[in-house]
Amino acid sequence: MVAMKINEDLQKERSKYNFDVEELTNFLDWGPQYTLRRRNLEQKVLNVKGLLDDIPEEYLSHKEKYENAVRKAVLYYRILQKENHSNISDEEKTRANFRNMISSAVFRDNSPFSLHYSMFIPTIKGQATEEQKAYWLKRANNMEIIGTYAQTELGHGTFIRGLETQATYDPETEEFILYSPTLSSYKWWPGSLAHTSNYCVVMARLFIKGKSHGIHPFMVQLRDEETHMPLPGIKLGEIGAKLGFNNVNNGFLGFENYRIPRDRMLMKNAQVLKDGTLIAATNSKLTYGTMVFVRVLIVNNMANLLAKAVTIAVRYSAVRRQSQPKPNEPEPQILDYITQQHKLFITIATSHAFYINAMWLWEIYFNVNKDLGAGKLENLPELHAIACCLKPISTSDTTVLIERCRLACGGHGYMLSSNLPQMYGLATAACTYEGENTVLLLQAARALVKAWSVRVEGKPLKGTMAYLAGTTAPKKWDSSVDSIVKIFQDVAIRKVSGAVETLKDYQKSGLSLEDAWNKASVCLTAASEAHGRAILLSVYKSEMDKRTASLSSSLKKVLLQLVELYVIYWALEKVSDLLLYTSITEKDITELQRRYIGLMEKIRPNAVGLVDAFDFRDEILNSALGAYDGRAYERLMEEAMKSPLNVEPVNETFHKYLKPFMLGKL
Amino acid sequence: MVAMKINEDLQKERSKYNFDVEELTNFLDWGPQYTLRRRNLEQKVLNVKGLLDDIPEEYLSHKEKYENAVRKAVLYYRILQKENHSNISDEEKTRANFRNMISSAVFRDNSPFSLHYSMFIPTIKGQATEEQKAYWLKRANNMEIIGTYAQTELGHGTFIRGLETQATYDPETEEFILYSPTLSSYKWWPGSLAHTSNYCVVMARLFIKGKSHGIHPFMVQLRDEETHMPLPGIKLGEIGAKLGFNNVNNGFLGFENYRIPRDRMLMKNAQVLKDGTLIAATNSKLTYGTMVFVRVLIVNNMANLLAKAVTIAVRYSAVRRQSQPKPNEPEPQILDYITQQHKLFITIATSHAFYINAMWLWEIYFNVNKDLGAGKLENLPELHAIACCLKPISTSDTTVLIERCRLACGGHGYMLSSNLPQMYGLATAACTYEGENTVLLLQAARALVKAWSVRVEGKPLKGTMAYLAGTTAPKKWDSSVDSIVKIFQDVAIRKVSGAVETLKDYQKSGLSLEDAWNKASVCLTAASEAHGRAILLSVYKSEMDKRTASLSSSLKKVLLQLVELYVIYWALEKVSDLLLYTSITEKDITELQRRYIGLMEKIRPNAVGLVDAFDFRDEILNSALGAYDGRAYERLMEEAMKSPLNVEPVNETFHKYLKPFMLGKL
Repeated sequence: MVAMKINEDLQKERSKYNFDVEELTNFLDWGPQYTLRRRNLEQKVLNVKGLLDDIPEEYLSHKEKYENAVRKAVLYYRILQKENHSNISDEEKTRANFRNMISSAVFRDNSPFSLHYSMFIPTIKGQATEEQKAYWLKRANNMEIIGTYAQTELGHGTFIRGLETQATYDPETEEFILYSPTLSSYKWWPGSLAHTSNYCVVMARLFIKGKSHGIHPFMVQLRDEETHMPLPGIKLGEIGAKLGFNNVNNGFLGFENYRIPRDRMLMKNAQVLKDGTLIAATNSKLTYGTMVFVRVLIVNNMANLLAKAVTIAVRYSAVRRQSQPKPNEPEPQILDYITQQHKLFITIATSHAFYINAMWLWEIYFNVNKDLGAGKLENLPELHAIACCLKPISTSDTTVLIERCRLACGGHGYMLSSNLPQMYGLATAACTYEGENTVLLLQAARALVKAWSVRVEGKPLKGTMAYLAGTTAPKKWDSSVDSIVKIFQDVAIRKVSGAVETLKDYQKSGLSLEDAWNKASVCLTAASEAHGRAILLSVYKSEMDKRTASLSSSLKKVLLQLVELYVIYWALEKVSDLLLYTSITEKDITELQRRYIGLMEKIRPNAVGLVDAFDFRDEILNSALGAYDGRAYERLMEEAMKSPLNVEPVNETFHKYLKPFMLGKL
Repeated sequence: MVAMKINEDLQKERSKYNFDVEELTNFLDWGPQYTLRRRNLEQKVLNVKGLLDDIPEEYLSHKEKYENAVRKAVLYYRILQKENHSNISDEEKTRANFRNMISSAVFRDNSPFSLHYSMFIPTIKGQATEEQKAYWLKRANNMEIIGTYAQTELGHGTFIRGLETQATYDPETEEFILYSPTLSSYKWWPGSLAHTSNYCVVMARLFIKGKSHGIHPFMVQLRDEETHMPLPGIKLGEIGAKLGFNNVNNGFLGFENYRIPRDRMLMKNAQVLKDGTLIAATNSKLTYGTMVFVRVLIVNNMANLLAKAVTIAVRYSAVRRQSQPKPNEPEPQILDYITQQHKLFITIATSHAFYINAMWLWEIYFNVNKDLGAGKLENLPELHAIACCLKPISTSDTTVLIERCRLACGGHGYMLSSNLPQMYGLATAACTYEGENTVLLLQAARALVKAWSVRVEGKPLKGTMAYLAGTTAPKKWDSSVDSIVKIFQDVAIRKVSGAVETLKDYQKSGLSLEDAWNKASVCLTAASEAHGRAILLSVYKSEMDKRTASLSSSLKKVLLQLVELYVIYWALEKVSDLLLYTSITEKDITELQRRYIGLMEKIRPNAVGLVDAFDFRDEILNSALGAYDGRAYERLMEEAMKSPLNVEPVNETFHKYLKPFMLGKL
């Protein structure tokens, strides 16, 4: 191996850390055994020939992007399939995968098979009977069939009861007849649906003897297994180009009286008997579990995206030199500007905060899921409420912070070769999918308003809602980190009580509950956000106190500086709440601001070390600006030279259009 | 013409406006004569065959996008050229073009010639001698040559003194030798540079007899006029794919001792005589004028982008129905949700606020420019400070609000056929180009700190800075719109005085001015933002009071509701400042929130009318979601069917990869 030439500024940065980078990597991976496992997988995948692009995706046409992605997907999924057959437990597998970002080395965007593992297989696991599972899971796990999951329709998103696709039971033939009554009932958005999958779980409204029985899942064959032609009665296509996910082959799907056998309804929860008798699900909340799980994964995924973005931005900021504040001195590294540190260091801390919260939430989920298996549902609503707050907050914070990292790289952050715009596209999509953010915050608000009525009744509140029993009286300002975390709970108490009051006032003025709810909805979402922030901060703080106990004192110190930074950053962001609900003064705020600036100085020498510890291989970062060696300008030029426009010095449009135009002949 | 079928919900909306849409259109256009002129131009351009795409740009490869754009650009610029020769004054032309968005019907993205008119010609006008102008302007205006402007380098952006490209004068041959000493000195970013332009104004560091004399402009031929081949000594290429502007053909440029005659230096401001004597510019600030002008255009352009985005989002929100708050009632239009109104109505008001501010600023610019011609420079610094605040605020607010509009359209806003992602790409670029936003805010802060020292000296402050002479004592809260606007000035006074104090404290602690400035920089940018907000609000309010005087009372009422909405929205956004610097109480804030909600109810019936009044033709909106007829779902499907992937039911990758993979043979 040739010794890598490292940019001098980065080399200097790496000589001045005051903690052990590998120790932090192991900490983030949840233990050195997971670091090892992750690195082995990365090594294995990146050794496969043909998986990395010679010409970057962004130069291809929309069609070529898809075709190139399928070519790579079959290579990549063959490896994944082997991994999935290895005999570690599901729990272990999930844990090991928390920081697995290897697919982003293969697809800057995403894979055309991604719904197969993330939605198709989990739905079969969650909704199929044992008999159905025996057949379908085997085929799906072997990838004899490729599947997806179709719920959203052209005219219907988060509101599931609004879905129009019909599944009418015909007891004569013991079949369901799938039918799309309108254009707005066409399934629209499912990944892999357009040209990739040959099977699909379809959510449709069940009709028996003219009566509607709500939404149920059906296993539907879409394409002939031999020819891949759409089957008669199936209308399929792709929905077109998007801000991101253009490899993913999102499709539309309509049915023209398409018949499927009775046993294609996934009947774990509700069953239709031969004669058309419906045996309804015992509890409709049983399917909540998967939804919550997906939202945990999203919080974790946001942590990973932030880690990638800030790795790129911090390394580039160490390499980039700009302006000349002091005459006769060299231009400083832009990482030395406080305004730049203000944009970047909070992103490092936020990534940590989201990792820690995702791990914590995952453990709660794991326990609640065990309870569910045993029929205990009592902790589900609370878990649901947490997920309904953390998913919107984590996705919208991540979108804002990735954007901030991108802008912090100036013009070069606008280049697709930086990979920052693509990451932004992936993050912002998460604000909409799996429950639109505003809708989720309003769902969480419902749980909070309910909790408030429990408080009013003098009954006890449990778990993450227990703090809502606290007093609404103003609090004394105290600038210790623990105290600020506590104050965020006090703020949430006040926001919830304020929203309940607003709701009541509007009702008193003569409005129906629904209309009052609508008029109070801006306050209600604010209450949910406050609840979510209180959880995020307190979990980050308390879990870090716990988890860092066994670390070296040097690393512990660095990590707790980030916790402090995060807490103070949010105190300053929400200073109006502190002014309203605590005794904080203008002087206290000035002190807090200066402490924040002081923290940046403490973190500055470790900045590159903190992002190095995220341990992203260059292939995974996939960024001209962020590579380990810091050769940002050289790589920008190397990437530019891959543009097909740079193959010829004169483009053919000169002779065809430009020359006649300049000669006045066109 | 076939009667257009209009969506029923939109039809209903249009029957309930309580103002005259055409009157508002004329108002926004600055008079009915400009509405007429704009519509005529639109009609003229849209009648040209071949200007609109059959296959949307987003399906093409990067190379095809460029080639398609050149094909259209020659058609489009032929028309523009005629327009530019018509004998109206420059002032009149600018005014007429404020709401001219016709190019976005031709290019969803932008044009590969755009730098020719926006930078190349203005630079010749501003920097060339009369003799040089006579030659170059004629050729450029006739488009016998296509030019661009190259300033930014791979390693150097906003800090102009850092530019490395060298122009060394050789008195022997009376030539300049252009040379790129490093990779980081390569010009990087100029639009049209890669394959389109054959001439370019290059900013380079002048060396005479071994001595550096700062940065000067040079007219450089890049390509042979006959063959378009890059000339010997010129290294040219394109920089690759970006988040947006992929039609624009951004390029890089390096010089290998490339010689140009002495008269190719643009010598209006500084001259190099034959023997190498340099006659320096009398005032280096003379070139500020153009910079300020470009920033005025940016504020106006942001108003246009917001208007387009919110037209799309409001119409779609009138058509889209979702959820069922009341049992047994139909799903409501999502425009009826307060959370949706909260996202959209402020965007309408912001577009108005930016239009009004751009017009106001343009008039100031026009007068200051006249003064400049007469050698009076005294008003330039103040104008420069305003532009340094309004450019960053308008571009970053616009980015946030377009994104909010896009997210308000749910998943469908993520489709490129909505055109919202592309608009976001155009807006966010403006946060970086023409002066990076943070850098500009810090430049404005320099002017504010200077103004503060004038105040301390007891001298008078002028124009938009006069208010800084006001008292720093806490203000009594008063909820009238005029009073809130005034309070924003009080807040700015406090932020400036606070930043100055922070600066001094850091200096007292032993830091140099430069280091203290860096540590205070977060406070300093906050002070600039506060100054900018104070201007934005007070100009919007006072200009609207003035300009609406001659309008019908019904329109006036609607427009002043938007002013009130804007002012209250920002009061609530900046409530921490109100709590710190006024006597506002929690109860006052609650009242303010309810008043804000009440305003939404007043604006709701006029929402569609307000966006109809922006008067964008469907071709200009270029959006499946936002068309006048509201056929959003039909258009989404029609656009999807244009995808080349939808031509064949089975993509060839099935036989090549998928089938062997599913059979376990790959």
